[in-house]
Amino acid sequence: MKLTSDQLRDLAVGAAFLGTGGGGDPYVGRLMVQRCLDEGLSVEIIDPKELDDTALVIPTAMMGAPTVLMEKIPSGEEAVASLKRLERHLGFRADATMPIEIGGINSTIPLVVGARLGLPIVDADGMGRAFPLLEMETFGVYGVSGSPMVVSDEHGDCALIEAVDNRQMEWFARGVAIRMGGCAYIAEYSMSGAEVKRTSVPNTLTLAIRIGEVLRRARETHLNPIEALLGFLPTTLYKYGRVIFTGKIVDVLRETRNGFSIGRARIHGSQPFAETMDIEIQNENLIARVDGLVKAIVPDLICIMQTETAEPITGENLRYGQRVTVIAVSVPDMMRTPEALDVFGPACFGLTERFTPIETIS
Amino acid sequence: MKLTSDQLRDLAVGAAFLGTGGGGDPYVGRLMVQRCLDEGLSVEIIDPKELDDTALVIPTAMMGAPTVLMEKIPSGEEAVASLKRLERHLGFRADATMPIEIGGINSTIPLVVGARLGLPIVDADGMGRAFPLLEMETFGVYGVSGSPMVVSDEHGDCALIEAVDNRQMEWFARGVAIRMGGCAYIAEYSMSGAEVKRTSVPNTLTLAIRIGEVLRRARETHLNPIEALLGFLPTTLYKYGRVIFTGKIVDVLRETRNGFSIGRARIHGSQPFAETMDIEIQNENLIARVDGLVKAIVPDLICIMQTETAEPITGENLRYGQRVTVIAVSVPDMMRTPEALDVFGPACFGLTERFTPIETIS
Repeated sequence: MKLTSDQLRDLAVGAAFLGTGGGGDPYVGRLMVQRCLDEGLSVEIIDPKELDDTALVIPTAMMGAPTVLMEKIPSGEEAVASLKRLERHLGFRADATMPIEIGGINSTIPLVVGARLGLPIVDADGMGRAFPLLEMETFGVYGVSGSPMVVSDEHGDCALIEAVDNRQMEWFARGVAIRMGGCAYIAEYSMSGAEVKRTSVPNTLTLAIRIGEVLRRARETHLNPIEALLGFLPTTLYKYGRVIFTGKIVDVLRETRNGFSIGRARIHGSQPFAETMDIEIQNENLIARVDGLVKAIVPDLICIMQTETAEPITGENLRYGQRVTVIAVSVPDMMRTPEALDVFGPACFGLTERFTPIETIS
Repeated sequence: MKLTSDQLRDLAVGAAFLGTGGGGDPYVGRLMVQRCLDEGLSVEIIDPKELDDTALVIPTAMMGAPTVLMEKIPSGEEAVASLKRLERHLGFRADATMPIEIGGINSTIPLVVGARLGLPIVDADGMGRAFPLLEMETFGVYGVSGSPMVVSDEHGDCALIEAVDNRQMEWFARGVAIRMGGCAYIAEYSMSGAEVKRTSVPNTLTLAIRIGEVLRRARETHLNPIEALLGFLPTTLYKYGRVIFTGKIVDVLRETRNGFSIGRARIHGSQPFAETMDIEIQNENLIARVDGLVKAIVPDLICIMQTETAEPITGENLRYGQRVTVIAVSVPDMMRTPEALDVFGPACFGLTERFTPIETIS
């Protein structure tokens, strides 16, 4: 499928939703892809099933703090440089690229890389949402090594990292990315077509487009967009979604620390929610609590949306006074297995609460 | 020349002297080389003049805080791994290795690498002393690129860094080395034999051995070792040396910060020195002041020695109450050119005083 400008607009909205507050504002990524389309370049999205089992797929992405990305807009060549450097190391040309993360700007970086290099982009990713750390990948959960990986900046600097495991890879790459100015561009988890089919969350690019489309069409036809979205989700791998809170943002804590955007949002409830909800953030929304009781917890999605427009709000755009609706959504089963929770479950974020599926929380 | 155990002992003393307080305690390096000799391995030191102009030379070293090194002793395989990784990247085998730094443990790391791999070690280095930063190399001053470089740890992790200049290389490599635990092992500034001859400080390995030998022989024959050393220096490229202070250490500030050992030593003078000397340290002794007046300044050597034994004292071994003699020594002319001072002159350490040759300071 060749991506159109309309689909790109929908994708940016859907990716912001799936970003659960993190992953960087996909608006910036949309502009980058739109420029490719304006130049006549083609963004060809293929189903993972179309991949040859022996194809070489090199995922590409941005890494770093979304708050930095907003001030240091990429040209798109940075991630291209990382992919080409990794090709040179591997001794083979990539047959395709793909997202490591569907939430936020990382849904769009591989589209730019694919357009610039004439490579198809696989309709799948390794997070099924956004996560703050490079090891938090279904790719890694199911056995693909993140190394060798390349991290590049806009000046032509690059580092090729070969770490003994994916956590060490993240640790070293983060150190380099911080010194590249707080955000940098990577190619990692190179793998075969067979491995993509076995380890990725499938069809998340088209899912993001459809989420954006559902919200837009509801708005155009004067339906309630949030109700439309909740009606659509059961037809996807993200089967269960529910409004867990509505209210007004009364406090936002936000700081850029150790290369991450760390913070907390506090929401005073409005009818029928009388209490106060606190949402803890490490790039993404990790846990929503009311009076200390868990209302939703990572890896399930916690999405803060403008109540009036149903626009997803990314962490760096949270502001005092915004009227918001908080939606929680179940993630695909492959992201809730014990081995998956070992890599991106609550304990991996220092949370003491155990994972509880959103559909079982009252 | 094949290094003997006696020469190795002298080398460790001379390297501590040339380390001007930094570079890590060469005692640890001596033990590593001695183990190689005990295993029957050969440490073959060659004059740079013996190098083919087209030979490939890959220098090897430790990088990080000497204070960390003292607690995390290397096996010797870490630097071997870095050299082999860089060979694999370059597509050629090294014909020799060599020190990037003659001061401290980095005079011995390439001896271990050479012994383990059966490579000769070039009798020369790129600092002519010790410096805290990887860009502070005569190699770089005279046009050799530090990149591509490899940094490895003891677990098998490694990063290959290709930076746009040697300062950026240092910046990224330091970030990785910090995350490798505060010290790591590198191969960098790969170059031809012709470049070694043009850009290195020659014959510093044998210089270090001879400095150690002069001190030892003076002690054995009941001469004053410091006077013997000052008598020997004019026969070398380090033409001028002088005692600038004697006294007792009354205060040592020391902290490990940003991957460096930062500090200050204060010395109360003894006859004929009535005042107090302050020596500022960033891994190495950078500047010696008495009442705010400069008595010696980087890149000239500032060496603190035990007054009684004439043993050089490295920064991490400075203690309250030590009776010390401070010697300043002129560095070779190639290290005092304007382009050299641009890379490792006083301003590069944040000092406002300009470089003044020790022989012109009263």
